[in-house]
Amino acid sequence: MAEPIFKGMNTTDLLQQIAFIKEIDKLKYIQRRTKLFHSDRHENDAEHSWHLAMMTLVLAEHSDRPIEVLKVVKMVLIHDLVEIDAGDTFIYDTSKNHSNTDAERLAAIRIFGLLPQAQAQDFIQLWEEFEEGKTDEAKFARTMDRFEPLLQNFSNNGGTWAEFNVDYQTVYNKKKAIKNGSATIWSYAEELLKESIEKGILKKDTTLL
Amino acid sequence: MAEPIFKGMNTTDLLQQIAFIKEIDKLKYIQRRTKLFHSDRHENDAEHSWHLAMMTLVLAEHSDRPIEVLKVVKMVLIHDLVEIDAGDTFIYDTSKNHSNTDAERLAAIRIFGLLPQAQAQDFIQLWEEFEEGKTDEAKFARTMDRFEPLLQNFSNNGGTWAEFNVDYQTVYNKKKAIKNGSATIWSYAEELLKESIEKGILKKDTTLL
Repeated sequence: MAEPIFKGMNTTDLLQQIAFIKEIDKLKYIQRRTKLFHSDRHENDAEHSWHLAMMTLVLAEHSDRPIEVLKVVKMVLIHDLVEIDAGDTFIYDTSKNHSNTDAERLAAIRIFGLLPQAQAQDFIQLWEEFEEGKTDEAKFARTMDRFEPLLQNFSNNGGTWAEFNVDYQTVYNKKKAIKNGSATIWSYAEELLKESIEKGILKKDTTLL
Repeated sequence: MAEPIFKGMNTTDLLQQIAFIKEIDKLKYIQRRTKLFHSDRHENDAEHSWHLAMMTLVLAEHSDRPIEVLKVVKMVLIHDLVEIDAGDTFIYDTSKNHSNTDAERLAAIRIFGLLPQAQAQDFIQLWEEFEEGKTDEAKFARTMDRFEPLLQNFSNNGGTWAEFNVDYQTVYNKKKAIKNGSATIWSYAEELLKESIEKGILKKDTTLL
C-alpha cells in the first residue's frame, strides 16, 4: 500500500519509523516452544518480550550490580526481533547454535535498518550488547530471558522439559546464566529446579529412564 | 501450587513479585477488537502493550515536550493490566464509559496489590497518571495508544471502523488526543484519516449511507 504524501516536519524520519513499526508486528507471529502459564497455548515472541520488560521493572532491585533500567527494558523489548527473519531457535535444540548466528546478524541489519540511520545503529549495538552478555545490563536482561521460561515450565508440570525429555543437568547448565545477573533470583531458581525433581516434573538423568 | 521454601534474601518481596509476574500472564488472554497488521487474528493486550513500548522508544523524539522515556514505557507496559479483571472496552462502544471505571480501579488495587507495598503504590500512581492524561508523559503514552490502532485499521482496509460502521467524525474525535502528545504524529495521523476517506475505508458520514 502506498504511503500517503505527508508534508509535516521530520517527514523522512517519521516514515522510516512507521515502516519499522509495521514490520515488527510480525514478532507476534513467531511462536516459542514454551506455553503460557497454566495453558496449552504457545507463547509468541511479542508476549514474551512484554513479559520480560515487566519482569525487569519489577525485579530490577535484585540485580547484583547497579543497572540502567531503561537500557535493560530496551534490550528485552528488542532481543527477539531478529527472529522475524531467522526464526525461533529452541534453547535445548542440540543441532543448532542458539545465539548470534549469521542469519540473526543479517536480520538485525535488515530490520533495524528500516529506521533512520542513527537510530538503527543504536538498536543494532544494543542487540549486540545483549547477545555478548558482558555488561551489567546485558547480564540482567539475560537473567530475565532465562528466568521466565523456568517459571512457565514449573507452572506447567514441566512444560518443554517434559515435552522434549530434557534432563536436570542440561536445564541446570542453561539456567546457570541467571546467576550472572542476580544471586537472589538464582537462589530462587535453584530451589525451583530442586523442587521440580522432587515433583517428578524434571528428570535427574534421562539416560536412566 | 505451593511455593517452594526459599531461604535467600528479600524472600517476601521476591515471592510477592513472582506472584505478580505469574498473574499478569493473563494479559495475553485479553483480546482487543483490532487485528494484527494484514491479518485476521485479533491482537491481545500483551502484544499491544509491547508494540506501544516499541513505538515509544522509536517515536519519543517527536514528543512536543521533553519526556522521561522510561516513565512513558512503564505506563504503556502496564496501562491495560486492569483489563485482566475489568475486560477490554471497545473505544467506539457508545454504551460503556471507556476510562477509569470503578471496576478498573478495583482491578488496579487487586493486581498491583500483589506486589510489595511501595512498588504497588508506585504502579497504581503511574496507572492513574496515565488515565488522567495530564502530564507530558501521560499525554505521549496516550498518543501511542491512539496511534497504533489507527495504523492497524489503515493497513487492514478500515479494520474496526469498517467492521463496526464508525464514521469519520467519530474516529477523528477519538484520534484528536494524538495531538496532545505530538503535533508531528498528529499531522501524519490526519493525513491517514483523509486518505482513508479517499480510499473509501472510512465513511464521511454513515447517516448518508
